[in-house]
Amino acid sequence: MRPTTSTTPASLQLADAKAVLAAQPFSRLVGAQLTAFGDGRAELRVPLAEHHRQQDGVVHGGVLSYAADNVLTFAAGAAVGPAVFTAGFTISYLSPARGDELIARAEVVRAGARLVTVNAELFDQRDDDEHLCAVAQGTVARR
Amino acid sequence: MRPTTSTTPASLQLADAKAVLAAQPFSRLVGAQLTAFGDGRAELRVPLAEHHRQQDGVVHGGVLSYAADNVLTFAAGAAVGPAVFTAGFTISYLSPARGDELIARAEVVRAGARLVTVNAELFDQRDDDEHLCAVAQGTVARR
Amino acid sequence: MRPTTSTTPASLQLADAKAVLAAQPFSRLVGAQLTAFGDGRAELRVPLAEHHRQQDGVVHGGVLSYAADNVLTFAAGAAVGPAVFTAGFTISYLSPARGDELIARAEVVRAGARLVTVNAELFDQRDDDEHLCAVAQGTVARR
Amino acid sequence: MRPTTSTTPASLQLADAKAVLAAQPFSRLVGAQLTAFGDGRAELRVPLAEHHRQQDGVVHGGVLSYAADNVLTFAAGAAVGPAVFTAGFTISYLSPARGDELIARAEVVRAGARLVTVNAELFDQRDDDEHLCAVAQGTVARR
Repeated sequence: MRPTTSTTPASLQLADAKAVLAAQPFSRLVGAQLTAFGDGRAELRVPLAEHHRQQDGVVHGGVLSYAADNVLTFAAGAAVGPAVFTAGFTISYLSPARGDELIARAEVVRAGARLVTVNAELFDQRDDDEHLCAVAQGTVARR
Repeated sequence: MRPTTSTTPASLQLADAKAVLAAQPFSRLVGAQLTAFGDGRAELRVPLAEHHRQQDGVVHGGVLSYAADNVLTFAAGAAVGPAVFTAGFTISYLSPARGDELIARAEVVRAGARLVTVNAELFDQRDDDEHLCAVAQGTVARR
Repeated sequence: MRPTTSTTPASLQLADAKAVLAAQPFSRLVGAQLTAFGDGRAELRVPLAEHHRQQDGVVHGGVLSYAADNVLTFAAGAAVGPAVFTAGFTISYLSPARGDELIARAEVVRAGARLVTVNAELFDQRDDDEHLCAVAQGTVARR
Repeated sequence: MRPTTSTTPASLQLADAKAVLAAQPFSRLVGAQLTAFGDGRAELRVPLAEHHRQQDGVVHGGVLSYAADNVLTFAAGAAVGPAVFTAGFTISYLSPARGDELIARAEVVRAGARLVTVNAELFDQRDDDEHLCAVAQGTVARR
């Protein structure tokens, strides 16, 4: 997440963060929405469609890894401001994602002087229930 | 990578693997192409366009993580056949990806009785040079 | 964790698990103790001494990674029994560990048919307070 | 790796690096030796004994994770000097380690302005042959 403009350099509000997401062409291609942002937390949602699938009909792992990457970065930005870049992350796939919507939630574990460690959980929503599909752990660096 | 049909259950050839990729709606959305497959190795290429970018103009990390996820899985399939699922992976971003094409190459490190460990490297191609953008390490399970 | 004997093949109790730990020469060298075990959870403690340190006086990262490796494996064993082996894990170091005791707690996130995903947190205990030093995410395979 | 003294702040030589390792009480407990250091590479060796084992006689995963942690950090120090700390790493276990000696080799993949990405391979030596036991990928931060 590297916003080129921000009303306040040191912090991002939900509206600012939504504007950052809307300015990401790949996030528009995927159809992601930012539904919560603040206090070292972020939530992304992806309404699921045919074009998110892999050959067997479940959601492609790449959609989950995209959501993990992005929600981890937004959560870090919600803790320490926009001057961050994602160093990397680990994702473990737990069960195939299906259903109406993918929900990715991330929370900062520790915001250090140089690095921010973030955990994320990814759920699919089916029949009003959420099912855990993947967990991720990431490292975001301050610039 | 969970092909529902395969000419030989125990192995996949390049043509089969290309058919699997073509049967992934999300890979079509991203525009990925499979350019090498066999002997525990795979190569994916994504011709880069505006819709792969994040807000600052470089390729979105989610495109890289999609490519890592998929090429790791194909490389494992090239070693042990199609009856695999990806358990997870770690990706480290090294430098922003730009240029004309994203190239993801993966190689199986070890194909064990239950798990296959795979390494991947992601490059962007600019002005006929390849630049390393990310490295990944993944675990793929046999079904 | 590969116990060679177990009163019941399908499950481990705290006493069994303590016997497994006591049968690990490296865990005796490090001085680890198993203080909780069951229901997909485990807790290891390492009373800290001079020989756990690195050159600057804080606990060596290798002690933390040992504790993460072991507690993740025990938690998986507490969920699915002793017939498991650890495929790998990711550890993020958050702050230097100091003080009297290292505490590693792990909890199974998902026990699947082939793989068990586990999260762990590592704390040091100083002046009766616990401080989070590291987080880990691991994958354990069923045999 | 946080050496408190160094003849030159910007670089470490093999002798300096050996002195750092010798100043790590936990590395002395494990019995690790630094056998190569320079140009973004490092090699650690651990002569294997009974006290490195787990309950089934193979080398404990914690010995491998210790070696990965340490060799990754030394390789980063060999690239960018001693002012570094390890942010975290991922280790995948490929096969049980046995034999006479554990050998850990690491190489810097990219030394960026803030972060250094390092890959490592761990081998055991048996009957004059080396067998790959684990691979690791780590992130080391500059101070």
